Amino acid sequence: MKFASYVQAGKASYGLVTEGGIVDLGKRIGVEFPTLKALIAADALGKAAAFAHEPADFAADTVEYLPVIPDPVHLWCLALNYVEHHAEVEAAGRVQELPKKPALFARAADSLTGHERPLIAPSVSEQFDFEGELAVIIGKGGRNVSEADAMSHIAGYAVCNEGSVRDWQFHTKQITPGKNFWHSGALGPVMVTADEIGDPHALSIKTWLNEQLVQDGTSADMVHKIPAFIAYVSTIAPLVPGDVLSTGTPSGVGFSRKPPLWMKPGDRCTIEIEGVGRLSNPVAADS
Amino acid sequence: MKFASYVQAGKASYGLVTEGGIVDLGKRIGVEFPTLKALIAADALGKAAAFAHEPADFAADTVEYLPVIPDPVHLWCLALNYVEHHAEVEAAGRVQELPKKPALFARAADSLTGHERPLIAPSVSEQFDFEGELAVIIGKGGRNVSEADAMSHIAGYAVCNEGSVRDWQFHTKQITPGKNFWHSGALGPVMVTADEIGDPHALSIKTWLNEQLVQDGTSADMVHKIPAFIAYVSTIAPLVPGDVLSTGTPSGVGFSRKPPLWMKPGDRCTIEIEGVGRLSNPVAADS
Repeated sequence: MKFASYVQAGKASYGLVTEGGIVDLGKRIGVEFPTLKALIAADALGKAAAFAHEPADFAADTVEYLPVIPDPVHLWCLALNYVEHHAEVEAAGRVQELPKKPALFARAADSLTGHERPLIAPSVSEQFDFEGELAVIIGKGGRNVSEADAMSHIAGYAVCNEGSVRDWQFHTKQITPGKNFWHSGALGPVMVTADEIGDPHALSIKTWLNEQLVQDGTSADMVHKIPAFIAYVSTIAPLVPGDVLSTGTPSGVGFSRKPPLWMKPGDRCTIEIEGVGRLSNPVAADS
Repeated sequence: MKFASYVQAGKASYGLVTEGGIVDLGKRIGVEFPTLKALIAADALGKAAAFAHEPADFAADTVEYLPVIPDPVHLWCLALNYVEHHAEVEAAGRVQELPKKPALFARAADSLTGHERPLIAPSVSEQFDFEGELAVIIGKGGRNVSEADAMSHIAGYAVCNEGSVRDWQFHTKQITPGKNFWHSGALGPVMVTADEIGDPHALSIKTWLNEQLVQDGTSADMVHKIPAFIAYVSTIAPLVPGDVLSTGTPSGVGFSRKPPLWMKPGDRCTIEIEGVGRLSNPVAADS
C-alpha cells in the first residue's frame, strides 16, 4: 500500500494512494487515527486495506502534499554513506573520515517540505545542492534493537531529497547548519509499505535537475546498511513509530561537479527510487 | 518570574515557582494555554503575574519536573563555544576547528529529562560526561533576525546539563550520536524570564559532580554570544516560541581531565547558574 499525508480543501489529512486516486483515510478513520503517524503507532496500517477498493475521493494531483510524515519525533540522516559519494567529496577538496561508524546528524522536521511544494533556495547562499536518498519509516518502536531484528521495525520507505547548503555545511566540522535550512529538502510523495519492497538494498536511485540525470545509483552501494543504521540509532535513542531514517546519497551531487551545479529558483529537482516513488519539487527563492 | 513544567498527581502541567511553592497555572489558564510553550507562543507570560501572590498549590519539591520546555520544535546547541573549553579539548587530543562560525548541532527533545529525574548512564559507554550550560528560551518567533534585534526574541533562560557520551561523540566528525542519548541531559528546573537577568553574558556557571566543583566559569567567556547564535540559527530555520538554544560549556569537563572523570550510576550532577537556577540530577544505569 501507498500512503500520503496532505492538505485538501484547507484540511490536513492522509490517505491511500491508489490507481484511481486518493482514498481519504482522515474522513474514514481519522477520529481514531488522526495522522499517518498515529496509524503506524497503533500498528494499524492493515486497517487501510479495507478501503483500498473504494472510489477515490480526489485525484492524486489535486492535493497539497505534506512530508509523508510531517512531524517525526526523530529525523536521522547519514553523511558519506556511499563509497563513490565519499570519493567525490574528497576529490572536491573536503577530506572526510572514512565512515567506519554511521556519520549521523539530525534534521529538524521543518527542513523538509512535501512533493510538488517548492524547495526554498536560501537567500544567503548559492550552494544549494540536491541529495536523492532512500528514507526508512519506522513502524515498531524499540530500543537497543539488534541488526537481526531491525527490519521488523520498518513500516515502509519513502523518497527523500536531503537538500543541502554546502557552504553552511562546511562552516565547521558539524554539517548540521547546511542540513537544516527551512524547506531545503522534501519527503514523499508516499510511504510504500515494506511488504511491497523486496530488498531495499537493491533499488535504483535516480535524480534529475531539470532534464539532466545527475545521480544514477543503487541502494546496494550503501556503506552502513539499513539494519546497522537502525541498530545504531536505537542504541542512542528510542525508535518511535514514524521516525525517519534517511540513508545517505549516491554520487553525482552538485558540489563535486566541475563546474559545480547548484539548484536555483526556477529549477525542478526530481528523484525516483525503484518501487518507492517519484518525488518532484520546483525550486523557489526565499521570500 | 520563574516557570516550571512538571507532572503532579499524574497530570502534566506548568506553573509559577514562587517563594511559597508552585502556583499551578494549568488549572488556572490551562484551557487557553495548555503548556508553558503555548503561553510563550501567545506572548502571554505576563498573564501569570496576576497569580503570583496566590497561595501555592504544591511545595516545589513535590512535583516531578519535566524539561522546562518538554517539546521544543528546535533544540540547537553549540560545541566549542568557550575558549578555555576549546583549549582543553585540543589538549585531550581532539583537534577541532577554531569555531569561527557557531559549531551547531541538534539534540532530540527526548535526550533531555527534568530536574531531579535520573540522567541515564548508557550501557554501551563509560564515557558519560557533564556539560553545564546556559540555555536561552525563545519567546518571539522570526526568521533572519539581526543581532541587533536578537535579544528581543528571548523569553527567558534555563540551566542545561548538555550531557555527552564522549566515545560515541567521536565515532565520526559528527558529534550528534554522543549528544543524543536518551535522557543523557537535563533542562530546568525553571525558566527565569529575561527581565530578571541583567546581562546574560555576566553569569557564573558552576558544575559539581557529587561534592567536587568541576566547572567554574562565566558566560562572559562565550565565543559566539547569544545575539550571534540567535541570528545564525534564524538564518537557517525559523525561530519558534519555546525553541531552546544551549550556548556551550565552559572548561572543566570530565574527558579533558587526567585521569578522565565520568558520571556513573549513583553519582549526582548539579549545575548552578547565577540568577537562573540550580539543576540537580542523580545518575542511574540504563535498564
